[in-house]
Amino acid sequence: MPSFRVFCIDSDFPIENIPYGIFSIPGKLGVFARGQLNDFMALGSSVWKKTRAALQKFFTKHLPAAIGDYTDFYSSRPHATNVGTMFRGKDNALKENWLHLPVGYHGRASSVVVSGQDIYRPKGQTRDDATKPPIFGECRRLDFELEAAFFVGPGNKMGHPISIDEAHDQIFGIVLMNDWSARDIQKWEYVPLGPFLAKNFATTISPWIVTLDALEPFRIASEKQDPSPKPYLQDKKLSAYDVQLQVSIQGKEAKEPTIVSNSNMKYLYWTFTQQLTHHSVTGCNMRPGDLLGSGTISGPKKEEYGSMLELSWSGKKPIKLNDGSERAFLHDGDTVVVTGHAQGKGYRIGFGEARGTVLPAHK
Amino acid sequence: MPSFRVFCIDSDFPIENIPYGIFSIPGKLGVFARGQLNDFMALGSSVWKKTRAALQKFFTKHLPAAIGDYTDFYSSRPHATNVGTMFRGKDNALKENWLHLPVGYHGRASSVVVSGQDIYRPKGQTRDDATKPPIFGECRRLDFELEAAFFVGPGNKMGHPISIDEAHDQIFGIVLMNDWSARDIQKWEYVPLGPFLAKNFATTISPWIVTLDALEPFRIASEKQDPSPKPYLQDKKLSAYDVQLQVSIQGKEAKEPTIVSNSNMKYLYWTFTQQLTHHSVTGCNMRPGDLLGSGTISGPKKEEYGSMLELSWSGKKPIKLNDGSERAFLHDGDTVVVTGHAQGKGYRIGFGEARGTVLPAHK
Ligand SMILES: [Ca+2]
Ligand SMILES: [Ca+2]
Ligand SMILES: [Mg+2]
Ligand SMILES: [Mg+2]
Ligand code: NI
Repeated sequence: MPSFRVFCIDSDFPIENIPYGIFSIPGKLGVFARGQLNDFMALGSSVWKKTRAALQKFFTKHLPAAIGDYTDFYSSRPHATNVGTMFRGKDNALKENWLHLPVGYHGRASSVVVSGQDIYRPKGQTRDDATKPPIFGECRRLDFELEAAFFVGPGNKMGHPISIDEAHDQIFGIVLMNDWSARDIQKWEYVPLGPFLAKNFATTISPWIVTLDALEPFRIASEKQDPSPKPYLQDKKLSAYDVQLQVSIQGKEAKEPTIVSNSNMKYLYWTFTQQLTHHSVTGCNMRPGDLLGSGTISGPKKEEYGSMLELSWSGKKPIKLNDGSERAFLHDGDTVVVTGHAQGKGYRIGFGEARGTVLPAHK
Repeated sequence: MPSFRVFCIDSDFPIENIPYGIFSIPGKLGVFARGQLNDFMALGSSVWKKTRAALQKFFTKHLPAAIGDYTDFYSSRPHATNVGTMFRGKDNALKENWLHLPVGYHGRASSVVVSGQDIYRPKGQTRDDATKPPIFGECRRLDFELEAAFFVGPGNKMGHPISIDEAHDQIFGIVLMNDWSARDIQKWEYVPLGPFLAKNFATTISPWIVTLDALEPFRIASEKQDPSPKPYLQDKKLSAYDVQLQVSIQGKEAKEPTIVSNSNMKYLYWTFTQQLTHHSVTGCNMRPGDLLGSGTISGPKKEEYGSMLELSWSGKKPIKLNDGSERAFLHDGDTVVVTGHAQGKGYRIGFGEARGTVLPAHK
């Protein structure tokens, strides 16, 4: 299958963007390899239509890179505070390490899929009632997590950390991500080694990698960090990005999606460069194509929360969708779409979408 | 570089074993591709010697597979009990989920290296004194972990779990592993998402993959599991293995290694088949070449403990090496070697070794 770098002149991908992605089209494609479109134009409108349809059908079917390792962080302060409050109470919400380092964990690379691929509701062990034995069955608290993620460029040799000054140039570009999560499985399994099966069944990313160059006009100061980070984590450059993010849910029978979250990439206390530098400070070797997720990006307001866990406050306050139905967590047949864009003057840098529909669990 | 399947008639790799591995030799090798050694014999003893030296030098330089994802479990009861006792006291040593499922976490695949590669002491944040801010510097509690690990064979499609009955045939073979660990980094970072930098700087495996067929005579019943596991984890076949395991440490100046641990692969409460089945029960797709570690294999006796953390009881009781020096944790220049074999009647199935020397931290 041939692969291409493409860009399209539409609202998400104007000339200012030029994202990278991989797609394939069956049949002859030499016409695109010639640096101009004259030969393609000569093929006539039925070919143009077929090509467009093929593009639409195929371009979401390929991951933009072979992902060696996938890591996920936990870098939004509102998100970590919300989750901590639900699990441990308000006064003990942030663990003491959280303000000193970007907390993260290694995730599962094999189940990172590209937008458009349906995902299966997972099964696993859960224990709601501590006085009874755990039970095995379908996840009943299936969630999304609104995230961004970046691909690593050249990387580093084992034993030779990436310094914070080198980190910018080590980031190839950014995608949107939905880190599907099974909250009931997570609660039972995660002590003491962290989330495992609760996160390993699927992670959806958008197919187009938006470069840091395209996002340069939207680079802003990150949240003030207090206490001041250790010198190895101090970035002299601005390293947050002002990118609007949105999540919608559409039930199987619903006529339209409902926007359930409006957040922003700037709500990251720890930035991408800090995440990458921290990850490699032990000498861990990063490789081209490694994917590093930001962690759920929740803003401070309720409508900016980036997961059902937070939006429904652990299921206690289900939210209403446009068709009148309620959601505490995701139902079978629900389609979750993450979108994002940076708004320039007269143009926008779009990210496309990270879309997935929940299939019933395997029988 | 050409690759081969080889077997050698020596103590570790007799005809009963026939492990798999990848190695490369510079120069012409067509003589080995002909199915018999006559042409090689014809080349004479200087070529034989050079070939042997090249083999010794090179065969430990290649991982036996491209590892897609690496997961590590926590399946020895003595190990989990020891660590839990040190961290939380005797009465609360095993967390309540431990007897119900094989606790595990996703690890870092990029830094899995083959026996013989030196590893760098990591740097990172630690906090020994909770009344003071964390500090940044070299790891001061560098440890080994004695483990076995298995490679996945065909794998499964996303959404379609591997059943316990299919699990045996999904295991390609077993290697030895040293999961290098930075205990001081781990202690500060691991709440609430588990070990991350403490484990991502290096993991050493032995180069030869010993097949389950070779280990068939050594397959035994696993430890009795009480409470009885959920049906999806009940294996009707015996699935533990009687394989003796050993760890030695040799300081830079020492004339000989000191054996510091004698353990056995049978000290796993959760077996390889249970680990694999549990891993995929959510529908997580396993791929050929995925590596699943057993977790530190400690036996019930002190001399069977599989880590310095346990052997020196968190550094409080340093152990003596043959040269008179003491170790609470590993020093720069220390060489750690993990070996293992199953003892048959008149032959043994060996695993070779997982060897690594600690280099000083990056300046
Ligand atoms: Ca996440
Ligand atoms: Ca381990
Ligand atoms: Mg995920
Ligand atoms: Mg390791
Ligand atoms: Ni260097």
